[in-house]
Amino acid sequence: MAKKRILSGMRPTGKLHLGNYVGALENWVKLQDEYENYYLVADYHMLTTDLNTDSIKQNTIDMVIDWLATGLDPVKSPFFRQSQVKEHTELFLLLSMLITTARLERNPTLKDQVRDLNIESLVYGHLGYPVLQAADILLYKGQVVPVGEDQIPHVEISREVARRFNQQYGQVFPEPDVLLTKFARLPGLDGVSKMSKSLNNAIYLSDTPEVVTSKMKKAVTDPLKVRKGDPGRPDICVVYMYHQKFNTPEAVAEVETGCRSGALGCVDCKLRAAARINEFLSPVLEKRRHYESNPNEVFDILHDGETRARAVAQSTMQEVHENMKLG
Amino acid sequence: MAKKRILSGMRPTGKLHLGNYVGALENWVKLQDEYENYYLVADYHMLTTDLNTDSIKQNTIDMVIDWLATGLDPVKSPFFRQSQVKEHTELFLLLSMLITTARLERNPTLKDQVRDLNIESLVYGHLGYPVLQAADILLYKGQVVPVGEDQIPHVEISREVARRFNQQYGQVFPEPDVLLTKFARLPGLDGVSKMSKSLNNAIYLSDTPEVVTSKMKKAVTDPLKVRKGDPGRPDICVVYMYHQKFNTPEAVAEVETGCRSGALGCVDCKLRAAARINEFLSPVLEKRRHYESNPNEVFDILHDGETRARAVAQSTMQEVHENMKLG
Repeated sequence: MAKKRILSGMRPTGKLHLGNYVGALENWVKLQDEYENYYLVADYHMLTTDLNTDSIKQNTIDMVIDWLATGLDPVKSPFFRQSQVKEHTELFLLLSMLITTARLERNPTLKDQVRDLNIESLVYGHLGYPVLQAADILLYKGQVVPVGEDQIPHVEISREVARRFNQQYGQVFPEPDVLLTKFARLPGLDGVSKMSKSLNNAIYLSDTPEVVTSKMKKAVTDPLKVRKGDPGRPDICVVYMYHQKFNTPEAVAEVETGCRSGALGCVDCKLRAAARINEFLSPVLEKRRHYESNPNEVFDILHDGETRARAVAQSTMQEVHENMKLG
Repeated sequence: MAKKRILSGMRPTGKLHLGNYVGALENWVKLQDEYENYYLVADYHMLTTDLNTDSIKQNTIDMVIDWLATGLDPVKSPFFRQSQVKEHTELFLLLSMLITTARLERNPTLKDQVRDLNIESLVYGHLGYPVLQAADILLYKGQVVPVGEDQIPHVEISREVARRFNQQYGQVFPEPDVLLTKFARLPGLDGVSKMSKSLNNAIYLSDTPEVVTSKMKKAVTDPLKVRKGDPGRPDICVVYMYHQKFNTPEAVAEVETGCRSGALGCVDCKLRAAARINEFLSPVLEKRRHYESNPNEVFDILHDGETRARAVAQSTMQEVHENMKLG
């Protein structure tokens, strides 16, 4: 039986951090054998909330290097930029005829963004971003969309426009199914918020061992554990969460016992976490260095992926044109 | 000095009538030497108010034959379908990031459509049709847009997004100027409404002499002029308006005098108008017959126009990509 297709995308925000890895990339790597994957650099989506494109090229390179460095295989699955496959915008326009503004205004994520970004007057393209997402998925006849719970409303919109198209013009698109994925949210070094570039509380996949160790030393731990000997509460400590994510079960158990008893001091605990993260990052950094010295390889990978993605996209759009009798 | 560029478009609604000719096509024919023209079959615009595309191919052929038959020259100016030049949708998406929904909701023509078509819930793509129009114009760097007064708000939107793009990404687009054109509105045979396909009060460019004469006989004239001998009021009579449009000044003066005095009966007056219209339509029908028997020529003309339009559109989009640093 043919593998099911998945379209996964990320906005090109630059170098990725451990939060991006744990929250998405790790899952992409896991799914790359079981499914037929398409990896989208969602550069047009960036524009919905930021018109400044000065760094978009460098940010794309940095992000794609992180994809490669953590193990995504561009031979198995094409990597491509949305802006290089015009069919995304073509299907976007056609699907935009199949959904009302009222329906899009009910999108809960949009409501959150309008509140969080203090948006006074919504940009027309921003209102339509779930339609662009639907085009991204349906162009490759994506059957499965791996999402967290908060993304389900977007997939619902994709299903609706697919259904509406098929009813009006005949069957072309599968209605993509949600593959509900527990995306872990890695807290940042401040111990309060999730890891995020803008909050300056992140460890990057590109951080050197020295940088990781230095950042980790400043991580916020249990405020009641002031010095070695004080008993700590691992369940409220971000360093413990990093151990849980990156260390072996045995080491995690040891850290927990040591922390609770007070025998393990925070400095030591942090150094152990840093060491384990550096061990995890060591092969990532090595691959990174290769691509950083050979940025042309990154573009070759994108160009190859874009050629492959375009072939699929053009074949879908030919079907769309035929079904719509558009010539 | 290079000729200025004009982008003119029509939705492919099928065979055109005298109202379409007087309201637009006649003006296109006049402008074709003074300007560098691009003639767009706006098939994607159709979708904003009608999703049914069953007749779109035949309607396109019928309309393009009328363009050819009335004297538009596809060698001078490319004829092309919006749906065959993907760059329209690409620029549409990019421009949709440069305008707010609130701005689009203030479009007075949209408000009229919502009222006239009894639209309860506005389709997302429908809200954005002035953005698609802006893309149509700017893709060819249209400098001049010949419009009637009611279309000025649309050109204003095109100017705004052009300006906004240039400010954000550097100069690419001219801000198109309005060429205010007095588009005559030809009343329909019912004497009440403007000539319109849906009101069944139209004389088509493709009507045979017999059909024109028969339709004209049923035209509504001054209700107070019941029989020959009764004095009539030419200024409220649609047949007189047809004389004004299609007859010689001398003949018009004669009709006016005859009508007012009562010496000219309505039947005679109508037959004179029909004869004059048939004279006007005779070469149109002849050219029509040629293309009706050779529909492949029509498609060759479109394919040629699409190749030429695409070359210009691609060059504009390359500039857009470079200015936006999108690769």
